[in-house]
Amino acid sequence: MSRPAGESNKHKGRYSEPVPTSNLVNDEEDFPEFEPFDEEAGPRSYAPSAGGLAAVSVDMCQPINKPNHYTTAYDIPNLVVRRGQEFVIRVFFNRQLGQGDDFQVEFLIGSNPSPSKGTLIAVTFGSRTGGPWSGRILEIQGESAMLGVTPTADAVVGKFRTYVAVVAGNGMQRTKRDARSDMYLLYNAWCPEDDVFVPDEGERREYVLNDSGVIYQGAVGAVSHRNWMYGQFERGILDACIYILDCSRMPIYNRGNAIQLVRKGSAMINSQDDNGVLVGNWSEDYSMGRPPTVWTGSVQILLQYANTGVPVCFAQCWVFAGVFNTFLRCLGIPSRVITNFSSAHDNTGNLKTDLIFKMDGTPDRRHTRDSIWNYHCWNEVFILRHDLPSNLSGWQVVDATPQETSDGHYRCGPSSVAAIKDGLLCHPFDSGFVFAEVNSDVVFHKRDRYGTLSAYRVDKTHVGQCIYTKAVGSYSPNDITYTYKYPEGSSQDATVMLLAEEYGCLRDHSELPEAQMSVSISCEQVQLSQDVHLAVVFNNHSNIPRTVKAHLAGSVVFYTGVTSNHFKDYDFTVVVAAGQTERVMLTVTAAEYMPHLGSQLCLHFVVTGQADEQSLTAIKDVELQTTSLTMTVSGQPQVQQEMFVTVSFTNPYAFPLINANLAMEGPGLMSYRTRFYSEIQPGASISWKESFIPRLDGPRRLVAVMVSDNLQQMYGETDIYIKAA
Amino acid sequence: MSRPAGESNKHKGRYSEPVPTSNLVNDEEDFPEFEPFDEEAGPRSYAPSAGGLAAVSVDMCQPINKPNHYTTAYDIPNLVVRRGQEFVIRVFFNRQLGQGDDFQVEFLIGSNPSPSKGTLIAVTFGSRTGGPWSGRILEIQGESAMLGVTPTADAVVGKFRTYVAVVAGNGMQRTKRDARSDMYLLYNAWCPEDDVFVPDEGERREYVLNDSGVIYQGAVGAVSHRNWMYGQFERGILDACIYILDCSRMPIYNRGNAIQLVRKGSAMINSQDDNGVLVGNWSEDYSMGRPPTVWTGSVQILLQYANTGVPVCFAQCWVFAGVFNTFLRCLGIPSRVITNFSSAHDNTGNLKTDLIFKMDGTPDRRHTRDSIWNYHCWNEVFILRHDLPSNLSGWQVVDATPQETSDGHYRCGPSSVAAIKDGLLCHPFDSGFVFAEVNSDVVFHKRDRYGTLSAYRVDKTHVGQCIYTKAVGSYSPNDITYTYKYPEGSSQDATVMLLAEEYGCLRDHSELPEAQMSVSISCEQVQLSQDVHLAVVFNNHSNIPRTVKAHLAGSVVFYTGVTSNHFKDYDFTVVVAAGQTERVMLTVTAAEYMPHLGSQLCLHFVVTGQADEQSLTAIKDVELQTTSLTMTVSGQPQVQQEMFVTVSFTNPYAFPLINANLAMEGPGLMSYRTRFYSEIQPGASISWKESFIPRLDGPRRLVAVMVSDNLQQMYGETDIYIKAA
Repeated sequence: MSRPAGESNKHKGRYSEPVPTSNLVNDEEDFPEFEPFDEEAGPRSYAPSAGGLAAVSVDMCQPINKPNHYTTAYDIPNLVVRRGQEFVIRVFFNRQLGQGDDFQVEFLIGSNPSPSKGTLIAVTFGSRTGGPWSGRILEIQGESAMLGVTPTADAVVGKFRTYVAVVAGNGMQRTKRDARSDMYLLYNAWCPEDDVFVPDEGERREYVLNDSGVIYQGAVGAVSHRNWMYGQFERGILDACIYILDCSRMPIYNRGNAIQLVRKGSAMINSQDDNGVLVGNWSEDYSMGRPPTVWTGSVQILLQYANTGVPVCFAQCWVFAGVFNTFLRCLGIPSRVITNFSSAHDNTGNLKTDLIFKMDGTPDRRHTRDSIWNYHCWNEVFILRHDLPSNLSGWQVVDATPQETSDGHYRCGPSSVAAIKDGLLCHPFDSGFVFAEVNSDVVFHKRDRYGTLSAYRVDKTHVGQCIYTKAVGSYSPNDITYTYKYPEGSSQDATVMLLAEEYGCLRDHSELPEAQMSVSISCEQVQLSQDVHLAVVFNNHSNIPRTVKAHLAGSVVFYTGVTSNHFKDYDFTVVVAAGQTERVMLTVTAAEYMPHLGSQLCLHFVVTGQADEQSLTAIKDVELQTTSLTMTVSGQPQVQQEMFVTVSFTNPYAFPLINANLAMEGPGLMSYRTRFYSEIQPGASISWKESFIPRLDGPRRLVAVMVSDNLQQMYGETDIYIKAA
Repeated sequence: MSRPAGESNKHKGRYSEPVPTSNLVNDEEDFPEFEPFDEEAGPRSYAPSAGGLAAVSVDMCQPINKPNHYTTAYDIPNLVVRRGQEFVIRVFFNRQLGQGDDFQVEFLIGSNPSPSKGTLIAVTFGSRTGGPWSGRILEIQGESAMLGVTPTADAVVGKFRTYVAVVAGNGMQRTKRDARSDMYLLYNAWCPEDDVFVPDEGERREYVLNDSGVIYQGAVGAVSHRNWMYGQFERGILDACIYILDCSRMPIYNRGNAIQLVRKGSAMINSQDDNGVLVGNWSEDYSMGRPPTVWTGSVQILLQYANTGVPVCFAQCWVFAGVFNTFLRCLGIPSRVITNFSSAHDNTGNLKTDLIFKMDGTPDRRHTRDSIWNYHCWNEVFILRHDLPSNLSGWQVVDATPQETSDGHYRCGPSSVAAIKDGLLCHPFDSGFVFAEVNSDVVFHKRDRYGTLSAYRVDKTHVGQCIYTKAVGSYSPNDITYTYKYPEGSSQDATVMLLAEEYGCLRDHSELPEAQMSVSISCEQVQLSQDVHLAVVFNNHSNIPRTVKAHLAGSVVFYTGVTSNHFKDYDFTVVVAAGQTERVMLTVTAAEYMPHLGSQLCLHFVVTGQADEQSLTAIKDVELQTTSLTMTVSGQPQVQQEMFVTVSFTNPYAFPLINANLAMEGPGLMSYRTRFYSEIQPGASISWKESFIPRLDGPRRLVAVMVSDNLQQMYGETDIYIKAA
């Protein structure tokens, strides 16, 4: 975040004032308490004359405003409201307001606030014209007045300072700065004029107000879920989100623009370029921080970043997506986490994912550059794209995971989902990149002895096989694949692919030999430490019998598809009669793969074969399942009543768990707590009981995560309905 | 450019190999000299058997290829060719080629070259299929063979290593790495299949091959020009341009994509974000480097950057544009420098430039955030936009001057000029920003005693008044305003403005009082140290006489419109009869402004007036003209013949010039030379004679620039036609 010394001085000939980029300001930069009118040479100090009006104090009326603005859950002493909707304040004067009294309420944000930039708003309550926010007097009661203030629906979002100024003869007399009257203004999904308006109340509650959720992981056919506690209302989180924007140096006056804000957010959630929130780490070495699997949610991460100003170690895609979702919902932007299964990561931005095999059919890792991630997580935000044709508004992809080629910087989006579906890749931002993630063809090449590649198979259906997000109001998945693409093979799909090619996405048009044979692999779900049984099926489409020289390779992979450890090679031969199929059962024992797992739980099997001149390839990823943690709760489920939760676990494995960290969290219920076990022997049990006092009512979830040196990713969860106090 | 320690390790689970980003490689990363075929367990070394073929050496045939590829001017020992067009090489073998001999020529770029990424190309010359570049045997002469190689028109651009590999029984036998056979591959404006194809030969010679030019400066009505020596063919410049790309960490395999390359270039020419080439400085303090006015061209800057790896101090917009132009032309991308007069720099990306005035009519600088630059320079590149609808190809704006709000990063474009003209702001990149630079309305606000703003005048014609570039084949300006916009007031103009608003560009729709009076200022060209005579004309459109209380304010401004020193205030009163005009002549003496100039040469006058309830404002910028340097040449104007140039100057001013640096340069004629004079007294003359030997023929220009502590920007130039040797 540092700037070269003298940076601001070097630009004094460019800007008349420094660009404001922080919600923190030196109070003395605001107005003086008495500001004489320019044209009058009056006294430099002021005392109200006999009978003169003076403002004494301001009450921000939290108990009235917060329920109306759906901001009760924020654990913060200040007022939090949403723009485009009236809130009330009570101003106390030194006497009752009368005819002819003139005053205004002023809201300021950042340094050098200016009315022409929307960072200084004067709200008037009579015939005199003020700024763009409207004001009205609701009630005069003794020496106080209840005022209604309506910010515009495109107002700057952040932390405003509040002043009351009375016009007093030769100047303006103001209240003193009082941090208690600072007000947080958010985006408003309930306001039809706001760019983030969502018409449906159920969707608003899910995408703005739900502070816990699930993120889908695993592989096609073996989808698992991970709980993620967004915790956007927890103490310190709103300030942390504004701190992130301040660190980004995004000009204050652009922060009311949802398009710019989410784009900046996608850059700031990762630490690349800008010292943002999270450091990515796709290795086996997390010794300089905490492994990506350890987190139960966003709260610990955001608080650590805001308290230290240093990027938090470590994250992989679901952590980036989970924390970004908290950031967005906290600021009032409707958002959700998406999982794309078999996500292409092509690094030249075309529609080909090139997998290269050697002459003998085994994968040629040295020459294969592209990868297919078993899954990849990103976010969607629901916003009006007034910078695009009108039918491209609605859900937009934003991705905070640092990927290499997204326009040269580590950020991605907003990219219209509707534009991706229709191949309209000529609009900002990064739509070609996202289109390739869900639509790439997988091209299988053989590399000959001279280094020349020839394509022998193209799989047009593997990538983007399904796209999931959590359903509204439930914990089940919502398959949203068809919001991103037309069904494979449909005429619309063909049209879209042609259009994408016109916009420069290269596809493969190799002339392929007609396939005489094919091969596939299937496998049931497998528990960790159990044997894997693979069914390999060879299909002979020709009218002569074929002999296949086949090979099975087994390795442990990261979820990014990159190989960690290779553990198995096995040759076998199969004869398949003309027009028939032949099924071969292969067993991979736990003893074979267990020593090679490291922190990964995904096995990657490739069967290759050579039948006369034809090459065959099939790939299967197997996610190993782990045992769950058991969670039970007791006590009266009501706000402000003590309750208890017990997490228990019995080690079912033949090996001890070493250095086990157990963590527990529940937004609105219990803050983050941890416990450490240096060793849990095979068959041994642990049990941990904690008390907690619910802060928020409604349906709530408590989650637990256990991570040990030799086995990561054991989870537990329990749902509780908390009654209001 | 530094990365956090362990960065690459943290990503080992993401990428199967590091992303190649440099043209420099460890030679040992390439193929071994003998590479056995995978499937054969042969010996690890090799000697050609009796009668076996072996390649001995390669001749890159520079004298044949360079004229055909228009690359003769590059002062570099290696071959430089353009893609999409055949070049020839001669390979020497150990014996004459015969039937059944199999060999291939291999071109490699960057680390980990790969055939699927276009960074390893095997060219074959028989029936065996090779990579995408085509090859043919042109002639066999004894033991050598003349080969033709045609790179694809979308090939990666940069520095390739060349190998010849002979298929020899159980492996491939290669030539040793030889840096003399390294080959530079460029974009090709002569090739119809290349994305940078330009149909017209005159335009290709101007926009790719011309190595000197002029950049327009000054203000509307007082346009001046500055010579700029691009020097893209000078020794070291091509390597410097590739070094810039390597510093950017742009993946090698993306460098054949002109859209991505120019976007990356716009980021790298400025030092912000990425330690790029030039540090911007808009102050009066250049003590930590050299003032932006000192440069004669790009060559010194690029060589300094390439030799030190440290950003060069200092630049303003024309320096960024001049150096960027060299970078683009050097790599073969057609480009030109553009000057937009009265360029809006609105920092919220809308179509309003808000100027704020106090109650008494004087400018309120504290509250004015936007600025109008007297001029701003950017570049245009001519490229096919296959990522956009087809009518948006052609000239594209790219801007390397660091501006604050271009999508949050210091770069801008490519943005289609055709899209800007038609208000199609829904396409990448940054078209809304450029649209505002040429189309903003200037809104004059009065700030009342309560801090409330009210608009009193909107000027829809001031911004983007004219847009100039150097004409093809001459040194006169080409007015290209109407390539950016329809005539003001035309029906198309109104349609475009409406469309721009639909795409989210806010305009001002204040209801303005009908103007009863107007005011304007005019002024003849003024030489430095002469008095300024301003003609201020008041026009009374109403049918009653009006008395105007008027005020003249004079200040020195940067070309960015930001005030440097305020030097004059003058009140006067004018009575204007009904329906009449009244002309007032005001004189500002040299004694008034001279002490306040600093390094600036632009005076800024504002006349404000109050006539009854109406506010009047007129603004005039006056560029002070300086004396020229005289340049005369002697000798025979022919390549490789010695010539002489004399620069002379007599100080016409009443003050001495202190610490005068005189510099001289001419691409293809003479490299950069300087001379220092600690003091040049009033009336004193200097004369400096240098010899030089022309390297290139054709029309050539020599330029001189003198910069002293108390007067910058004195120029001289002379044109010479150099005959071929």
